[in-house]
Amino acid sequence: MTKSNPNKIKAFAPATVANVACGFDVLGFAIHGLGDYVTASYSEEPGLRITSISGEEGKLPKEVEKNTAGLAVLSMLKELDEEREFGIDLEIEKKMPLGSGLGSSAASSAAAVFAVNELLGKPFSRHDLLPFAVEGELAASGTAHADNVAAALIGGFILVKTHQPPDVISLNTPDKLHCTIIHPEIEIQTKNSRKILRKQVALQKAVTQWANLGSLIAGLYTNDYDLIGRSLHDEIIEPVRAVLIPGFSEMQEAALHHGALGCSISGSGPSLFALSKSRDEAEEIGKAMGTVLKSIGLEYNLHISKINTEGASVV
Amino acid sequence: MTKSNPNKIKAFAPATVANVACGFDVLGFAIHGLGDYVTASYSEEPGLRITSISGEEGKLPKEVEKNTAGLAVLSMLKELDEEREFGIDLEIEKKMPLGSGLGSSAASSAAAVFAVNELLGKPFSRHDLLPFAVEGELAASGTAHADNVAAALIGGFILVKTHQPPDVISLNTPDKLHCTIIHPEIEIQTKNSRKILRKQVALQKAVTQWANLGSLIAGLYTNDYDLIGRSLHDEIIEPVRAVLIPGFSEMQEAALHHGALGCSISGSGPSLFALSKSRDEAEEIGKAMGTVLKSIGLEYNLHISKINTEGASVV
Repeated sequence: MTKSNPNKIKAFAPATVANVACGFDVLGFAIHGLGDYVTASYSEEPGLRITSISGEEGKLPKEVEKNTAGLAVLSMLKELDEEREFGIDLEIEKKMPLGSGLGSSAASSAAAVFAVNELLGKPFSRHDLLPFAVEGELAASGTAHADNVAAALIGGFILVKTHQPPDVISLNTPDKLHCTIIHPEIEIQTKNSRKILRKQVALQKAVTQWANLGSLIAGLYTNDYDLIGRSLHDEIIEPVRAVLIPGFSEMQEAALHHGALGCSISGSGPSLFALSKSRDEAEEIGKAMGTVLKSIGLEYNLHISKINTEGASVV
Repeated sequence: MTKSNPNKIKAFAPATVANVACGFDVLGFAIHGLGDYVTASYSEEPGLRITSISGEEGKLPKEVEKNTAGLAVLSMLKELDEEREFGIDLEIEKKMPLGSGLGSSAASSAAAVFAVNELLGKPFSRHDLLPFAVEGELAASGTAHADNVAAALIGGFILVKTHQPPDVISLNTPDKLHCTIIHPEIEIQTKNSRKILRKQVALQKAVTQWANLGSLIAGLYTNDYDLIGRSLHDEIIEPVRAVLIPGFSEMQEAALHHGALGCSISGSGPSLFALSKSRDEAEEIGKAMGTVLKSIGLEYNLHISKINTEGASVV
């Protein structure tokens, strides 16, 4: 395999909201503005290296075999199975907080495989990159989950039918949808927030959940914002995880009171997301949720965005 | 309230397939050719009467307050809350088997409320009739279920978000879809087939189920027959109920082998449905399933139909 031009590619992959209330482990969407950058460049020295990671206060390993993004790219290079006389260097710039529930590791994995694929002259389609990024997620969370990484790579609303090998469906994304994200400054590890979930659920609650997921998807395809709002409920996961997030119920109530179609935990938290029909509403919702956190003395970051339907991109 | 013209209306409502593999208690669709007829006519004597029921070997009660269709119409007349100097007579012609898993009671309820609504000059829209028909179902099965009755009344693929009050969504119905229905001549009572279900399910299986329901709905909206096929699986209800149906696994295997997109239990059984992309395939599938039942000495009825997107209609 020979080098293609240019010899350096910088890619961005966005932060993502997984679960989306009723879609535990199967639904995700991408947002604008928050995300990670990965620069891939050729090196004289064969092999893959992570030369720098910034923005994570030294918390992430630079060893390729221990790093989510590194493992994702290794998996991709292995699939290419070609002799290379050159090496590849990765510079990772984390522009979103770790452990926020916004798919931090997924953004790095998606940006990394996207950047390297561009650097190598696109041997893979965007969709074909997904299994490699899922490999990276497997290393990060202990299980292969495609919801964040599929949304980060492909953009828009994504349904994950199966995680490994990934079978993902790009759903329709209604144009007016805006997302408010509030990130209280506490950290929850995905592994821990998964441990507290019950292994069994009542059939009746499961039926309610799949009815809601079904109607949410119908609402997305028909741009029916009311139906989307009626569907954004989670009686199974949210009640268990919400106890880890101070002020959860009050924030959810404030969001709904200010016009949110729905509001729940982003991924495994502690961030919350709320969906609404306009930027004005999204901002009002953010203010109201922030007031709740202020009242209990918690610092937070607020982010407002439309749904990102582009996914990973070259900068 | 005065009489409107004509003074006799005969309505048809179709047989329906509920559950549809991954959509237990929330999904249904209607078929052509099988169903019930209800004739509503004015009578000099005030009140509601069922003057005749045919085609059910005397198994159904003629007392209005004990009959599914009678209760549905009573609920509707109560909502109108008007003084009437005339009465209404109902003649019910059952043209489909009871206890077949094809929504027999739902077809009668839907046809009855549709016929009486037409007779009275359409005081209600088609959708508005649904709560009354659900009342009838409540009396028939002990729980308020809208999946069969919504599909019988409205037609096409129907998602039931909530049963009572009914919140139902008309999904898109891909044009090529054909349905094969095989009804082995054994009877299963809905109440009994519900009793054997486990009250708890593994979270992991529930996630698989809602992923499949989500992708089935995405497949319906995008006319993606492959995706519909990949989604028609049920790991929760089917394994429990299939044991009540002799030859189930062999029939399912035969259907899939002959091109079915999917095959599962219709409602609570014992009928099976299989979806396919053409009449030719639907007929091949029916033959193959029939061969299985013949080999174990069971009589059966076979029915082939496109999806009925019309719902209840005046004859």
